Amino acid sequence: MQDKPIVAFVLSAGLMPMMFRPRDLDRLRAVADVLGPFEPAEILSPARPLSTATAIITGWGSPRFTDSLLAATPNLKLLAHSAGSVKNLVDESTFTRGIRTTNAAAANAVPVAHYTVAMMVALLKQIPWLIREMTLGKTREQMDQHVPHIRELQDITVGLIGASRIGREVIRLLHAYPNVQIKLYDPFVTPAAAADLGVQLSSLEETCRCEVVSLHAPKVPATYHMMNAQTMSLLPDHAVLINTSRGALIDESALIAEVRRRPLYVLLDVTDPEPPPADSPLRREPNILLTPHIAGAMNQARFSMGELAIDEVLRFLNGQQLQHEVTLEMLPTQA
Amino acid sequence: MQDKPIVAFVLSAGLMPMMFRPRDLDRLRAVADVLGPFEPAEILSPARPLSTATAIITGWGSPRFTDSLLAATPNLKLLAHSAGSVKNLVDESTFTRGIRTTNAAAANAVPVAHYTVAMMVALLKQIPWLIREMTLGKTREQMDQHVPHIRELQDITVGLIGASRIGREVIRLLHAYPNVQIKLYDPFVTPAAAADLGVQLSSLEETCRCEVVSLHAPKVPATYHMMNAQTMSLLPDHAVLINTSRGALIDESALIAEVRRRPLYVLLDVTDPEPPPADSPLRREPNILLTPHIAGAMNQARFSMGELAIDEVLRFLNGQQLQHEVTLEMLPTQA
Repeated sequence: MQDKPIVAFVLSAGLMPMMFRPRDLDRLRAVADVLGPFEPAEILSPARPLSTATAIITGWGSPRFTDSLLAATPNLKLLAHSAGSVKNLVDESTFTRGIRTTNAAAANAVPVAHYTVAMMVALLKQIPWLIREMTLGKTREQMDQHVPHIRELQDITVGLIGASRIGREVIRLLHAYPNVQIKLYDPFVTPAAAADLGVQLSSLEETCRCEVVSLHAPKVPATYHMMNAQTMSLLPDHAVLINTSRGALIDESALIAEVRRRPLYVLLDVTDPEPPPADSPLRREPNILLTPHIAGAMNQARFSMGELAIDEVLRFLNGQQLQHEVTLEMLPTQA
Repeated sequence: MQDKPIVAFVLSAGLMPMMFRPRDLDRLRAVADVLGPFEPAEILSPARPLSTATAIITGWGSPRFTDSLLAATPNLKLLAHSAGSVKNLVDESTFTRGIRTTNAAAANAVPVAHYTVAMMVALLKQIPWLIREMTLGKTREQMDQHVPHIRELQDITVGLIGASRIGREVIRLLHAYPNVQIKLYDPFVTPAAAADLGVQLSSLEETCRCEVVSLHAPKVPATYHMMNAQTMSLLPDHAVLINTSRGALIDESALIAEVRRRPLYVLLDVTDPEPPPADSPLRREPNILLTPHIAGAMNQARFSMGELAIDEVLRFLNGQQLQHEVTLEMLPTQA
């Protein structure tokens, strides 16, 4: 009888019940001997039998696979990351050793896209501000000043910056809304791919002229402060701007100056730094709304990420094609 | 050469530019002589040539078609209402005279459904409360108490009360969210129709046990205070309750008692009375959010309602089948 392959969890034990449902762990145990979870701090202990592992499942906070860790995992063939970015986990050395890598960004994209589209509706409808005014006891007449600026997510043009997994999920959802035209700025998307997505490939400037603009680009040198005084000046009055990507994409000083100058409705789930200091002006501008980096997977979607990672391991062990592989070539343009 | 049929607008002139785009009016003028708009107050003036009108387009605030008004419109064959409910517009006497009636509730359903699904995402994610706390300068640690209760609109059961046009549009949108099971309470829906909709027909009690409950039933005697102390006691802790239908469906005193007793997240776009008094306890409960009856068509969707009404007139004049007819039998169960 052949020994089962060995699969190890290398992540904080506290993450296990948040990321992996018993039913998914059972599917893994049916075909593999499962070790761990090993805390990131203890995996280099000589007593740990990581040397036998064919696959390792990692998660938020897992350690980088340095040369010393790779030396301790000579049989490793697959790193299945149950979170999004693998930038802090792997580099060229894992790829050159033939270790394949997958991530669960696709499952994390779902709740971020849900947040994004929901908040497009909410901000266009002025809902956060109307909720605030109802609390303050405002009358219907006082609130009527909002009415000319209350809009719907239909018969409108939305500008998306970045056709990342999240951007593509946003596009998919937006197609359920009547007559929403989508302009996309993404230098890595071809016109043919844009046509397949049902979007109009546009310049950054043209995309910034939409009534709704949402950021879904990675934090790379080329995107640093891409929303700056010049690009934000292109937003029409009463535009909605949403950022669920990374805070560094927006020049926050320029944003504050812009919202003090004219009516814009802004929602930031990410800031730079994060969270903003308690006395940050970002927290005090009435037309800037903040949430504490919660657009991504927080509860049910975390189980989906864990399920995705386990599914990738099962595919690998069965000799099937991986569905969420990250290659060395993909690393530079990924979040 | 045959005379063009006569179509009259009977609604406040102020509504015209909010409801009807020039391109839609032009389509109507191409086939009909268009009269009006006549203000509701002036239509009985003998100088008004309503007597020649084959079709009348009405809107919010249009008058009831009483016997005296019907006597002044002997050639009327179609009343195309550019708003939702026709309850205050027509009664048995228009139907018995053979005057057909259409409404634009279908176009109004779209923005209400958008609001509903967006706010399901927002309330499950605790977004309105997190926005408030960010403004108050709360730290990440202080906000971490919310994390166990942040959920996504996926892998969850949603309870809908009423498969109205709005309810059906909510169902259609929810099918875009992963693994959302829908329980529907609606005594007028057959099991076969529920299966077609992809929902599980349920009792009111079973529907109230869902993590998310949204009301889409009309205000009729049977729905008065259907959400009362007994039914609201069935909501699980941390449930989300949204009402975009009519305030009278909820016993507000019982609701206030319930949210003071345990954690529930409530959003009311409608109240009874409306708006609530400036000192209403509804405005001061931290877990009750209010918006001032803005879920429905406010801007782009109003043009869709006007377009729908004009399309119905054009269909009628062309001898085509009406798509949004309201029959006498439908009146009692409509909003």
